[in-house]
Amino acid sequence: MNAPHQKLTNFVVSAYNDWHVEEWAGAYPGRILPLAILPVWDVAAAVEEVTRLAAKGVKAVTFPETPYALGLPSFSTDHWDPILKALCDTNMVMCLHIGGAFKLLQRPKEYSIDQHIIMSPQLSAVACTDLMVGGVFNKFPSLKVAMSEGGIGWIPLLLDRIDLHMENQTWNGLDLGGLNGTESFRRNFLGCFISNPSSLLLRHRIGIESIAWECDYPHSDSTWPRSPEILHAELEAAEVSDEERHLISWQNACRFFDFNPFVELSEQQATVGALRARSADVDTTTTSRAEYRRRFEAALSGAST
Amino acid sequence: MNAPHQKLTNFVVSAYNDWHVEEWAGAYPGRILPLAILPVWDVAAAVEEVTRLAAKGVKAVTFPETPYALGLPSFSTDHWDPILKALCDTNMVMCLHIGGAFKLLQRPKEYSIDQHIIMSPQLSAVACTDLMVGGVFNKFPSLKVAMSEGGIGWIPLLLDRIDLHMENQTWNGLDLGGLNGTESFRRNFLGCFISNPSSLLLRHRIGIESIAWECDYPHSDSTWPRSPEILHAELEAAEVSDEERHLISWQNACRFFDFNPFVELSEQQATVGALRARSADVDTTTTSRAEYRRRFEAALSGAST
Repeated sequence: MNAPHQKLTNFVVSAYNDWHVEEWAGAYPGRILPLAILPVWDVAAAVEEVTRLAAKGVKAVTFPETPYALGLPSFSTDHWDPILKALCDTNMVMCLHIGGAFKLLQRPKEYSIDQHIIMSPQLSAVACTDLMVGGVFNKFPSLKVAMSEGGIGWIPLLLDRIDLHMENQTWNGLDLGGLNGTESFRRNFLGCFISNPSSLLLRHRIGIESIAWECDYPHSDSTWPRSPEILHAELEAAEVSDEERHLISWQNACRFFDFNPFVELSEQQATVGALRARSADVDTTTTSRAEYRRRFEAALSGAST
Repeated sequence: MNAPHQKLTNFVVSAYNDWHVEEWAGAYPGRILPLAILPVWDVAAAVEEVTRLAAKGVKAVTFPETPYALGLPSFSTDHWDPILKALCDTNMVMCLHIGGAFKLLQRPKEYSIDQHIIMSPQLSAVACTDLMVGGVFNKFPSLKVAMSEGGIGWIPLLLDRIDLHMENQTWNGLDLGGLNGTESFRRNFLGCFISNPSSLLLRHRIGIESIAWECDYPHSDSTWPRSPEILHAELEAAEVSDEERHLISWQNACRFFDFNPFVELSEQQATVGALRARSADVDTTTTSRAEYRRRFEAALSGAST
């Protein structure tokens, strides 16, 4: 994008990735799965970075949900093919974070932040449709895509709609490499949700191996620190079996990202109860900004005396 | 919009409505519920037309799903208030047809008609969100809105999302007149679907009185002439009770539009079997364009000899 400094910018991207992979995530093996960034303005450099990262054992890169919204070519062009091929060759996951597609939606000046927050997850369907219907998986059938924080609520409708469209409007000749929409989705995607009680009822329509829970800590959209209780209540309400709970709460993510979480902790040490017992000193009470300011100022004045 | 001819255009709109209501729908009382159009470029004239139509017994007007997409003010402004008030005062339904919001979504030149068809129903959520979150029902709590052909697949996600947002991010202060998203939706909306097998499983999340089936005849998106069989299979798969089938297939629509379908036919005469028996002479076989051309040309040459 900023061509004169492109080499420098690419170097900074690699430096960030090294810090992120080795120092930040590397300090806690099995706990944090690093998510690398790519120099998306320079396809050749991005391919080189994917190869470099793969050699370090990196499993995932983040990518714009809808590159077209950033003024870059869309997924329906061949522009991204070298990067997508490199991701397939190295078995890395492309993570598309919610919200990118929102830039594509023209909004009046009087719309509110509520409208933005509420609509965002519906628009992950745009990114998913662009990839599936745009022919990306016809070229790269092994490409893995995680719809990060995109929720899973739009998936049943999208699959119903694609499958009916392919059956009912055959005159369009849509070809998903011999698969229908449901089969194509389950082969290539992982849906990721924070809270979606209704959609858990449709888990078998989505595909029980295509759903991963996330808690979005420390963002305000998170249900933390009540996340385990809220997830548990949603799983109970949807009568999800124990086997399916394991798939949804960690096994699907670990399989999809080829990630082993049991490096420093065993499975028994990684339960909600065991982890909470280990962190009994952490204050998770709701604290007002005013109280934080008071504590901060008290600490400052204590430090200066 | 075309100010110099505005009076003439308004006159043509009224003339169309008179033909549509009296001749086209009026020829079959109880069979066709007329759907009037309004001069949306002239709020005062639109109010006058609503009042004029109500006196003729008209129950429904069509309206742009997202007026902002047509260069008109959004539903978050006060611009439409006189029309919305007139609709409430006359107990008329505002029908928002799918697809209007698609103009708001910026698409690359290489996107396909498949992407358009597949994405359209997700975007009915934009129109619904704009009305609910934009405060329209705080001003007009009795306004009735039918999401024509919008499907019902986006509704569970939208309701989950609004309800969580209002509970989890109270700092935004979103006020839906004391209701949560689910309550507000059920009070004001009718969801309309052609085929949505997954969403029928969530009918109680949506609200069993907020769902109406439609067959979209004679558009290519229709399942006609297999519509009864396809709906029946979807209702069976979702284990929908007889009582709920009546609600979904006709009672909800008749209640919402205050429409009596049993004017010329009794309920017994209006079943699928009875109606098919009455129309045994209608050819519903799939016929190719070439065959239609052959028949047409044969008829022409027969007429000329």
